[in-house]
Amino acid sequence: MPRAIASLFIEDGVWDGGALGKGEGHAGIVKFFRRAPSAFTFAIHNVMNPIIEVDGDTATGRWYLMQPLTRRNGETESAMWLAGRYEDDYVRVGGEWKFKRLRFFTRMLTPYDEGWAKKPLA
Amino acid sequence: MPRAIASLFIEDGVWDGGALGKGEGHAGIVKFFRRAPSAFTFAIHNVMNPIIEVDGDTATGRWYLMQPLTRRNGETESAMWLAGRYEDDYVRVGGEWKFKRLRFFTRMLTPYDEGWAKKPLA
Amino acid sequence: MPRAIASLFIEDGVWDGGALGKGEGHAGIVKFFRRAPSAFTFAIHNVMNPIIEVDGDTATGRWYLMQPLTRRNGETESAMWLAGRYEDDYVRVGGEWKFKRLRFFTRMLTPYDEGWAKKPLA
Repeated sequence: MPRAIASLFIEDGVWDGGALGKGEGHAGIVKFFRRAPSAFTFAIHNVMNPIIEVDGDTATGRWYLMQPLTRRNGETESAMWLAGRYEDDYVRVGGEWKFKRLRFFTRMLTPYDEGWAKKPLA
Repeated sequence: MPRAIASLFIEDGVWDGGALGKGEGHAGIVKFFRRAPSAFTFAIHNVMNPIIEVDGDTATGRWYLMQPLTRRNGETESAMWLAGRYEDDYVRVGGEWKFKRLRFFTRMLTPYDEGWAKKPLA
Repeated sequence: MPRAIASLFIEDGVWDGGALGKGEGHAGIVKFFRRAPSAFTFAIHNVMNPIIEVDGDTATGRWYLMQPLTRRNGETESAMWLAGRYEDDYVRVGGEWKFKRLRFFTRMLTPYDEGWAKKPLA
C-alpha cells in the first residue's frame, strides 16, 4: 500500500501533510505511509468540492476532505473527525497524471466525543 | 417512492446492499423499499468520490456514501452514521442510463452516541 | 468577505437561506454576511451531489451541504451539524457565471452533542 501510494507521485514528488507529517520522494513517501497505520487504524477519505485546473501537462487541484478517523494511542483507539483541504500539483508524464506535490491543510482534528467547538485541534 | 427507485433499474436489475438487504428485479426492489421506512426514518444520501467509466452502452460507477441515518427500533429512534461504497453497473437502454446492478459495501454503521471506534458495525 | 460573496451574485441577486435568513441585492447580501460571523464562528462548506443543468446563458444547480458549524450564543460556542440542499439559479453575464438566486433548504441543524434523532432542528 505505501508503494502503491508512492507510485501515484513522480519520483521526487512530495506528500506534505503539514502538522500530520511529510514524505519527500518515493522513498520518503513509502516510509511515511509505513508508519501511518500504527497511529491511524481506520480512515475514510471522503473528498469533495473539487476545483481542478489543467494547463497543458500540468494541473492543480483543490479538494475538501471530511474524514472519519480512528487514532491509536497505546492500547486506546479514539474516533476523530479530520477535516481540511488538499492543494495538489499534478504533472502529466508519459500520458499519465501524477502528483508532483500534495499539500494538506488541517482545519479540524477533533475527538468524536468532544466535537470541534470544544477541541478543534487534538 | 419505491416504484420510482425501481424505475431507475432495468427490469431484472438488482439493488444489493449486502448485510442491509437485497431486492432483485422491479418487484423485489419495490418490496425492499416498502419495508425500509419502518426501519430507517431519516436518511441523507451524501455521495462523493465518484469514479465513472463509460464503455459504449455500459458503464460502471463507484461512489462513497456518508449518510446521517435514523434507525427505528420499536419506539426508539437512534441517530447513526452509515458510510460505505457503492459499486454500480449501468446500462443504456433506449437512450436512458439505468442501473443494472447496484451494490453497497458498508464500511461503518455506528451509533451516533458512540462513534466508529467503539462500535463500527451496530 | 461579505463583499466578495455579494460579487458572485448579479446586482439584484438573492441569497435565500429560508429560516437561516435572507439577503436581497448586493447591499442586502453584504448586510446579511456582515452579521453572520457573530452567530456562526466556524463553518466548513462541504458540498456534494451536484446536479447542474445548463441552458444557454442560464443554468440551475442543486447541491447537498454537510456542514460542521459552530454557533455562538452569548459566551457559549456549540458545535452543530447543518445539512441541507442548495437550489441555485445561475446566469451568464459578460462571460461570467453569477448567482441569480441561491436558496438553501435545511434538512437538519442539530447540536453535535445530541444528534439528529434527538434534536433535528435546533
